[in-house]
Amino acid sequence: MNKRGDNKTPLSDLGKYGLIDHLCSELKISHKSTVRGVGDDATVIDNGNRYTLVSTDLLLEGIHFNLIYSPLKHLGYKAVIRAMSDIFAMNGTPSQVLIALGISSRFFVEDLREFYEGASSACEKYGADLAGGDTTSSLTGLTISVTAVGSVEKNEITGRAGAKPNDLICVTGDLGAAYAGLQILERERRLFEKDRQIKPDLGGNEYVIGRQLKPEIPAGVLAMLRGKKIRPSSMIDITEGLASDLMQICKASGTGCRVFSKNIPTDYETVRVCEEFNIDPLIPALNGGDDFEMLFTVPVELYDKILGIGEVKVIGHITEKGSGNFLVGADGTEVELTAQGWKK
Amino acid sequence: MNKRGDNKTPLSDLGKYGLIDHLCSELKISHKSTVRGVGDDATVIDNGNRYTLVSTDLLLEGIHFNLIYSPLKHLGYKAVIRAMSDIFAMNGTPSQVLIALGISSRFFVEDLREFYEGASSACEKYGADLAGGDTTSSLTGLTISVTAVGSVEKNEITGRAGAKPNDLICVTGDLGAAYAGLQILERERRLFEKDRQIKPDLGGNEYVIGRQLKPEIPAGVLAMLRGKKIRPSSMIDITEGLASDLMQICKASGTGCRVFSKNIPTDYETVRVCEEFNIDPLIPALNGGDDFEMLFTVPVELYDKILGIGEVKVIGHITEKGSGNFLVGADGTEVELTAQGWKK
Repeated sequence: MNKRGDNKTPLSDLGKYGLIDHLCSELKISHKSTVRGVGDDATVIDNGNRYTLVSTDLLLEGIHFNLIYSPLKHLGYKAVIRAMSDIFAMNGTPSQVLIALGISSRFFVEDLREFYEGASSACEKYGADLAGGDTTSSLTGLTISVTAVGSVEKNEITGRAGAKPNDLICVTGDLGAAYAGLQILERERRLFEKDRQIKPDLGGNEYVIGRQLKPEIPAGVLAMLRGKKIRPSSMIDITEGLASDLMQICKASGTGCRVFSKNIPTDYETVRVCEEFNIDPLIPALNGGDDFEMLFTVPVELYDKILGIGEVKVIGHITEKGSGNFLVGADGTEVELTAQGWKK
Repeated sequence: MNKRGDNKTPLSDLGKYGLIDHLCSELKISHKSTVRGVGDDATVIDNGNRYTLVSTDLLLEGIHFNLIYSPLKHLGYKAVIRAMSDIFAMNGTPSQVLIALGISSRFFVEDLREFYEGASSACEKYGADLAGGDTTSSLTGLTISVTAVGSVEKNEITGRAGAKPNDLICVTGDLGAAYAGLQILERERRLFEKDRQIKPDLGGNEYVIGRQLKPEIPAGVLAMLRGKKIRPSSMIDITEGLASDLMQICKASGTGCRVFSKNIPTDYETVRVCEEFNIDPLIPALNGGDDFEMLFTVPVELYDKILGIGEVKVIGHITEKGSGNFLVGADGTEVELTAQGWKK
């Protein structure tokens, strides 16, 4: 009944963001309350005094998490972090979270309690209420859909568009740790699957594993920026990877960029784990994703103000449209940044 | 790593609503903007002048739809209807819809375009903007998560709680048609799977099949109620089935109910299909679900006003707490209503 044609376009031809652009290119916005639709981290709705922000996220077993090493409590926590991160990326604060779960019969009530404990603990930490949701059966894996609702002062909102040539490119915290943590967890999973008696050896890698399983949002840094009256000219949360997310900013803003590899912050534990796995730490920092740090741009005049915030690093600057997106190596060589294709 | 214990509680022990109650029983609401959380069709957020309503819905392949007989365009339409229906059930109007899709590589760009065409056509019909979303890979089936945002005047909001003894129980439209349509589609699927040359024979059953594949919301009737200044004392959309959804109202309102089987509206095509399948038409009307009609209660004084609305039927009345939830047969016998267990 459904036809599968030969002349159809594979999803991989477009990549994730290309696909969303393509699907939504013809959508008409008719509600006067719809301020921004597809193409930013969250949907922006005008509610009079403030903007209401709504974002929705889907986590699927086998793609976004593996239950072998993701305790359900951590998974609930991370699922809520993912959705709230989009609200913070627009300089907003979350207020409500809704969760819909698709669950198979291999789960027990106690398992779901654990999940909800983690989810409500993330809500509590970042000041939101777990205020709705649904459960449904699933024939296959665990399916988690999280919707976060928040708000932002109208003059404080940030989006992907807005970066200007010469703006400084900044990141919070350090990058690539979540990917490094995943490498450890995957190695232990493979060993465990060969021999179920083996106890996982996670010692000494607590930081990177924690970043993978129970990430946090740099909400304190964002509050500090607001306190110093610094409104980023553009902002996005680093979920796909620095390269891909920075290219989103450049595309939306109509600019290019130069990023200096020596300035990209990585934790020493990330570097050590990467050495263990023979990976250049720059790779997970650029393409690892799931770090939930913030990537933002500010006018160059704010350089001194930004320097005063310890948890923010300036990693490059925005350039004119058409000048490309480049990574500048320690030796001055320039390599074009590439976004990952269709991955997750 | 994850333990699976023997002393754990199977999900089936609690049933769907019991499970949600159990998981959310200890949630604390701390935001003053959170008016209502878990336990109604949508989350209610105070935004000053009006209430903002947010609802989220998850549709999973094999549970909620079968791609063999659900064209992607209809599926996109129905997915949006499901989420918007929760907003209408609280007497609100939807304004924005967000969609997150989990898709496997067996889909093509053109397939997703079809889905989006259906989704945006439902948005347009009911006056909402398709204003956000995400796509992600899926290892298994198609996963659809839809979030609907809307609003309602503060003094017009309806919820599940609020029904009072002697209130009239009303339904819009007719019930059981979606279930009857599903029987036809499933029969043709089985024939098709035995012999791929067979063309499905759907003739004469267009109404019930349409109700299954491309349902509508009785938005006109709700507008008429508002026009006549009738605010239901409680309301819910019929998605699980009349019995289960009515029991939700009685539970939330702390009441019992009497429903008269002869008053439950069914379409003649539903009755004919049920006869073909040897099913009492009352069964799908009570337990079929997916009808997307509205079930509501009004004070008995409004009987004459309600009678004037052709598309509304009075099917019974609310009774005192502790007097049970009963279906009264044509011969006067009373049968206790039972909700379905964990199904979807």
